[in-house]
Amino acid sequence: MKVLITGIDGYSGWPLALHLLGRGHEVVGIDNFVTRKRVKEVGSWSGTPIGTFPQRQEAVQRLLGKSIQFYKGDVTRYPFVVDVVRREKPDAIVHLAEQRSAPYSMIDVDHAVRTQVENLTGTLHLLYAIREASPETHLVKMGTMGEYGTPDVDIPEGFFEVDYRGRHDRLPFPRQAGSWYHWSKVFDSGDVMFATKIWDLKSTDVMQGVIYGTRTPEITDDALLTRFDFDETWGTALNRFAVEAVLGLPITPYGRGGQVRGFIALEDSVQSLRIAIENPPKRGEYRVLNQFDAAYSINELAELTHRIATDLGLSPRIEHMPDPRVEAEQHYYNPIHELLPALGYQRSRNLEDVLREIFRDLIRFRRRLEKRRHVVMPTVEWRHADNVGRLNTRHAPAPASAAATPATAPEPAVDTSHTPA
Amino acid sequence: MKVLITGIDGYSGWPLALHLLGRGHEVVGIDNFVTRKRVKEVGSWSGTPIGTFPQRQEAVQRLLGKSIQFYKGDVTRYPFVVDVVRREKPDAIVHLAEQRSAPYSMIDVDHAVRTQVENLTGTLHLLYAIREASPETHLVKMGTMGEYGTPDVDIPEGFFEVDYRGRHDRLPFPRQAGSWYHWSKVFDSGDVMFATKIWDLKSTDVMQGVIYGTRTPEITDDALLTRFDFDETWGTALNRFAVEAVLGLPITPYGRGGQVRGFIALEDSVQSLRIAIENPPKRGEYRVLNQFDAAYSINELAELTHRIATDLGLSPRIEHMPDPRVEAEQHYYNPIHELLPALGYQRSRNLEDVLREIFRDLIRFRRRLEKRRHVVMPTVEWRHADNVGRLNTRHAPAPASAAATPATAPEPAVDTSHTPA
Repeated sequence: MKVLITGIDGYSGWPLALHLLGRGHEVVGIDNFVTRKRVKEVGSWSGTPIGTFPQRQEAVQRLLGKSIQFYKGDVTRYPFVVDVVRREKPDAIVHLAEQRSAPYSMIDVDHAVRTQVENLTGTLHLLYAIREASPETHLVKMGTMGEYGTPDVDIPEGFFEVDYRGRHDRLPFPRQAGSWYHWSKVFDSGDVMFATKIWDLKSTDVMQGVIYGTRTPEITDDALLTRFDFDETWGTALNRFAVEAVLGLPITPYGRGGQVRGFIALEDSVQSLRIAIENPPKRGEYRVLNQFDAAYSINELAELTHRIATDLGLSPRIEHMPDPRVEAEQHYYNPIHELLPALGYQRSRNLEDVLREIFRDLIRFRRRLEKRRHVVMPTVEWRHADNVGRLNTRHAPAPASAAATPATAPEPAVDTSHTPA
Repeated sequence: MKVLITGIDGYSGWPLALHLLGRGHEVVGIDNFVTRKRVKEVGSWSGTPIGTFPQRQEAVQRLLGKSIQFYKGDVTRYPFVVDVVRREKPDAIVHLAEQRSAPYSMIDVDHAVRTQVENLTGTLHLLYAIREASPETHLVKMGTMGEYGTPDVDIPEGFFEVDYRGRHDRLPFPRQAGSWYHWSKVFDSGDVMFATKIWDLKSTDVMQGVIYGTRTPEITDDALLTRFDFDETWGTALNRFAVEAVLGLPITPYGRGGQVRGFIALEDSVQSLRIAIENPPKRGEYRVLNQFDAAYSINELAELTHRIATDLGLSPRIEHMPDPRVEAEQHYYNPIHELLPALGYQRSRNLEDVLREIFRDLIRFRRRLEKRRHVVMPTVEWRHADNVGRLNTRHAPAPASAAATPATAPEPAVDTSHTPA
C-alpha cells in the first residue's frame, strides 16, 4: 500500500515510516520541521542525536535500500495539501502533523489559540483534500486517550450504548479533555466524524495512549534513531523521570501521583497504526480505536524508574511536586481496548524492558542531556493565564503570526558531543 | 449591571441592547460589522432597512434618552479584547460575535476553516481576557441547540446522569452537530467548560434555538429596527418561507420536512438572555441552558406560513425541494428546557402572532425584498466540497486572509427605496 505520513519527521512518524517500509509498503512524507523549531524555542533539543531529514533519507537508502518520497510543507496551507494528495493518491494518510504538547498549549493565550487553530485547520484541510482529490483514501487521525478525561465509568472505544429516560441510542462517548491541546484533538474528532458521514469517507480516529521508548526493531543504527524529548514542554512524564534519574535530579511526580493513564511502547504503537492501515474501514465508516497497552499511575512510573536507576548504580530519589495541571490525583480509570486485539494486535514489549532500554540510550547520550539539564523541571502552571515569564526559555516564544506561516528553520545538524558507550 | 455585548450590531445583539437599556442596565458594545459585509458578499442585504451604527446610537439617544458605549473592533485580535474588558470590567459579557451561518460554513474549505478558526479564537480570547483582566465577569456564550443533533433519546441541558457497565457518572451530553458552523459551537462549549473549571470563572452556555421575529417591545420606531436576513446563506428557513410567500415564490421546505428544531421568538430570546445575565452562576460554575420555547417541524412552519399568506391575499404554494443538508428528515426530538422557566422565564409571544407581524413588516419593505429576490432560493449542496461556483453571488467570497484581518467596510447607509405601509 502507499501511505502518506504527515509529520514524518516526528517521534512516532519516523519509526512508523521505517516499519511500513520494512513491511513492503511505499512511504510518502510531509513535514514542516516545526517540532524541531519549537523544541529549540524552549531551549531544548532531542535527547537522541538525529540527523537532518535529508540525512535520514540517505540513511534509509544506505541501510535499508529504500527511498522515502518527501514534501516539505505545512498542512495549514490547503493548496500544498491538496496538491500532494492529488499527486500521490495514497491508500492511507496517517495524520501526525499536529502540535502535540499539552504544556505548550497552556503557556498563554497565543499558544492556546495557535494549538487549536493549527490542529483543526490541518485536519480540515486533509478532509477536504481527500474529498476533493482522493475519496478512497483512508484517513488515520491521531487523537489521544486524553480526550476522554477521567470519567467515573468505563471508557468505550468512541461510542457507547445509552439508556436515558426510557429510550436508547448509540452515542459518541462524552469528551472531557484536560488542556487546550487535548481539546484540539476533541475538535478534530468531531470534524473527522462529520466529514466521514457527509462525504462517505473512510476514517480511523486513534485515541492514542502515552508512547514510551527510544527504539523499534527497524532502528538498527544510530543514523535511524527517532527523536526523544525530555524538557518540561515536549517530554512525557516517563521521559522526564528517566532523564532526571540519569542527571542526578529528583524524579518529580506531580501531586499525589495517583493519576492513571494508558501507555504503549513505541514499537507497539507503530504496530497498531500499521494494523489500522492494513485493515481499513468501509466507505462511510468512522472507526475509533483506543490505542494503548496498559494503564499505569504516575507513582508506578516513578517507582519503576527509581528501581531501574538504582539497579544501574545511579542514586535516584523521588520528590513529589505540586501538580501544575488541573486534574484528579486519584480517580477511577478503566478504558476498553478490544478493537485492535480483534484486528491482530499483540503486545511485543513491556514497560520494564523498554524502560531499561531507554536508560541504556540515555546513558550513552548523557552529555547531550547534561547540556540541557535546565529545561527538565516544570515551570508552567496551568491555572495561570500567562506563563511566559515563568518558562525556562532561552528564546522568547514565537510571535503569533507563526501560526499562519510555515516554520522551516531546520534544527542544527546532528550534535556530535555524545560519546557512544 | 454593566453588560458588554460582542456583536451588538447583529440580529439579536441589537434588540438585546435595547432591552437591557430599558431595564436600566448599562450597555457597552463591540462589533466589526462583518455580518453586514458578508451578507453583501452573497449579494443580499437586510430585509429591514437598518442604519449605520452611529445612526443607531443617535436613534437610541433621541428616542430612549440612553447612550451606548461602542468599540469597533474584532474579537480575533486579543489586545483589543483584553483592553476593552480591562477598561470596562463588565458584570457580564454576552458573546454574539461569531460567524453564525451553517450554509456559509459549508461553502468550501476556506469558509469551513474560517468559521471554526474565527469562532474558537474569539471565544478563547474572551476567556483569557476575563481571566486576565476581570475574573468576576460572567460570560454568557451563545451556543446552539444544533450542537446536540437529533439523538434518539431526550436532550438534557448540557449534562446527564449516565449508568454504564455497572457504574454511574454525570457527564456532558454527547454532541453530534450537523455543519462546520455547528461544530464550531461545540468546540466553544468545550473551551468554555474547561476554562471555567481551571480558572474558576462564571459562565453560561446558551443552547439557542432558532430565533424568529422582526420586533421586540423596545423597537418603537423604524430607526430602532434590527436586521432581518432572508437569503439562502444568512436567513433561517422561516425567514425564507415568509419572504418567498411575499415575493410570489414557492415556499420551499427541504426534503420531507419532518426535521424538527427548537424555536423561540426574538422577544423571548432577549428575555432569556436578560434572565441569564440577572441570575449569574457562582464562580467555578459552567451552566448550560437550552434556550427555546417550542419545537416545530419544517412542514409545520411551511404550512403556517402558507395559511397566513393566504389570509393576507397572497397566493402561496409549497414546493418541497431536495435537502441540500445532511440530516434526518424524520426523527425523535425531545429536548428538555426547565432551567430558564425555573429562573422566571415566561413565554410572551407565540409563533403565529409573530409570523403575522413578520408578514406586516415584510409587506411594508416589499420593494427592498424584490431587489434581492435572486438570493432566496438555495444553491449550496452540503455534500459537495466546493460550492463556490454554485453560489448566487454577485461578489466572489472573501479571500482566505479575511480571517485574520478585521472586516470594517460598513453596509451602505439606510436604503430609502421602501414605501412605508
